[in-house]
Amino acid sequence: MAAIAPDYLTALLAPYTATDPSTTRPFVTLTFAQSLDGKIAGAGGKQLALSGKESMVMTHWLRTLHDAILVGSGTALNDDPQLNTRHLPPLPPDSPPYPAPRPIILDTRLRLPSSCKLLKNYANGKGTGRRPWVVSCAPRSQDAEWDARRQALERAGARVLLLPSDDESGRIQALLSLLCAEGIRSLMVEGGAQIISAFFDVATECVDTVLITTAPLIVGAKGVGFEVPGENGAFRVAETRLVGRDSVVALVAAPPAEAQ
Amino acid sequence: MAAIAPDYLTALLAPYTATDPSTTRPFVTLTFAQSLDGKIAGAGGKQLALSGKESMVMTHWLRTLHDAILVGSGTALNDDPQLNTRHLPPLPPDSPPYPAPRPIILDTRLRLPSSCKLLKNYANGKGTGRRPWVVSCAPRSQDAEWDARRQALERAGARVLLLPSDDESGRIQALLSLLCAEGIRSLMVEGGAQIISAFFDVATECVDTVLITTAPLIVGAKGVGFEVPGENGAFRVAETRLVGRDSVVALVAAPPAEAQ
Repeated sequence: MAAIAPDYLTALLAPYTATDPSTTRPFVTLTFAQSLDGKIAGAGGKQLALSGKESMVMTHWLRTLHDAILVGSGTALNDDPQLNTRHLPPLPPDSPPYPAPRPIILDTRLRLPSSCKLLKNYANGKGTGRRPWVVSCAPRSQDAEWDARRQALERAGARVLLLPSDDESGRIQALLSLLCAEGIRSLMVEGGAQIISAFFDVATECVDTVLITTAPLIVGAKGVGFEVPGENGAFRVAETRLVGRDSVVALVAAPPAEAQ
Repeated sequence: MAAIAPDYLTALLAPYTATDPSTTRPFVTLTFAQSLDGKIAGAGGKQLALSGKESMVMTHWLRTLHDAILVGSGTALNDDPQLNTRHLPPLPPDSPPYPAPRPIILDTRLRLPSSCKLLKNYANGKGTGRRPWVVSCAPRSQDAEWDARRQALERAGARVLLLPSDDESGRIQALLSLLCAEGIRSLMVEGGAQIISAFFDVATECVDTVLITTAPLIVGAKGVGFEVPGENGAFRVAETRLVGRDSVVALVAAPPAEAQ
C-alpha cells in the first residue's frame, strides 16, 4: 500500500475537501518554519536549514494535500526551491505518483530566472515538477524589457498569468480570485517574509490554516523575520506537536461565532 | 513525600550543583515565554497570559532550583510579579516549604514602587516571598530624589545593592560579579525584553541555559519582542518537549570544544 499523509494533517485540512461552487478563493494554508527568535531566513534573505528532517517530510506530505504552492519571487531567487514531494517515501513501481502541487510564483516584476529549478524540473519531463505559473501584472506603459522577460519565461515553460492591476492593496485577494478562476481549490503558501506578512495582513479574510514549525535554533538579529500586522484573534489552536526536534503548531480560522 | 521538580529540569541544571570556589558568577538560566510571533509582552510592555497552566507550573519548579530570580524594573512595574512558587502542589503540613528564590530587580533608576507585591509579600511575614534585592547604581552627583526613593524602598523592606558604575557596557558582568560575591550561586533571569536582549548579548560569556516556552498564540506587531544581537552558535539543543499546549526548548552552552 502506498504511504499516505499522516492523519493529523488530513484531519486538519478536512474542510478543504468541501466543494462549495460559490467559493471565490482557494482554501489557504499559510505555512513556514522559523527559528526560536522568529527568523525565517538568514541575513539578506539567505536560505537557512531550519526544519529538521521529520518536519521537512511533514511539509512534503502537506504539499500532496494542496492543489498548488505559492512562493514569492524573493524566495524563488534566494532558495531556488523545487516545491515538490521528493522527501516522501519511495512508492512501489506500479503505484500512481504522489499528487504533485502546481508551483506558483508571485512575481510582479518578473524577476524569476528561466534557469530556475522549477522550470528545469518541468522541462525535463520526468515528473519532478508540474508546469510553474508565474503571476505578475502588466507594466503601466510599454516595457520592452518586461516583454522580453515574459517571453523568456514562457519559452522556458512557464505560464504567465496577470493580475488585473499592479495595486499592492488588494493584491492577495486579487491573486486568490485569479487562482480560484483557474481551478485552484487549495493553496499552500510557503513564504518568504513579504508573502507571509501580506497573508497575515488579510488573514481573517483569506487564510484558513496557519502551520508554523519552530526549530530549536537561534538565528540572531541579522536574520529575516516576519510581521503579523495588527492583532490576530481570528485563529484558534488546532494542534501542537513535536515533529522530530521541531514544534509544530496548527492554527485554524475560528468559526464566525467564536471570532466575534 | 513532597513533590519534587520534574527530572528533565533537574537533569538540565545538574551542572549547577557543581561547587567551584573560583567561580566569579552564578550559573545563569535565561528563561521566558513568547508567542509564535516572538512577542513576550503586549503593546507598551503590557503583561500577556502567554504560558499555559502546565508551563507556568514548570516555571515555578524551575524557580525552586535557583538561588535567585532576576527581572528588570520594566517588568517589575508592568507585571508587579511575585516571583514565588505559589503554583506548585500544596505540601503536607509537616514538610519544609519549597526552596524560595531571592527576588532581584535590576533597577538602575530606582523606579520600583514601595507598594509592589514583592515587597508586600516579604513584609507580611507569611513566607510568600524572600527579601527583595534591588540592584541599582549611585547617581553621578548628589540626587536628593534618588536618596528619597532608596530610603523609601529600604523602609519597605528592600535591600539596595549598588553596581560599581552606571556604565551600560559591562553591566551584566558587573551584576553577576556582585551577586556572586553575595553568595548567589544560580540565577534565573525571567525578563523583560531589555534584560533578555542584554543577556543574549553576552550569552557566550554569561549564560549557561536558555529555556524558551513558545505558546501557540499570535500577538501581532504591536507586541514587544526581544533581540538576539549577533549570531548565536554558542548553544546546543538539550531538550524539546510539549508542556501542555506550549513547546519548551532548552538550549545549553556548548562545551568549548563544540563551540569552536
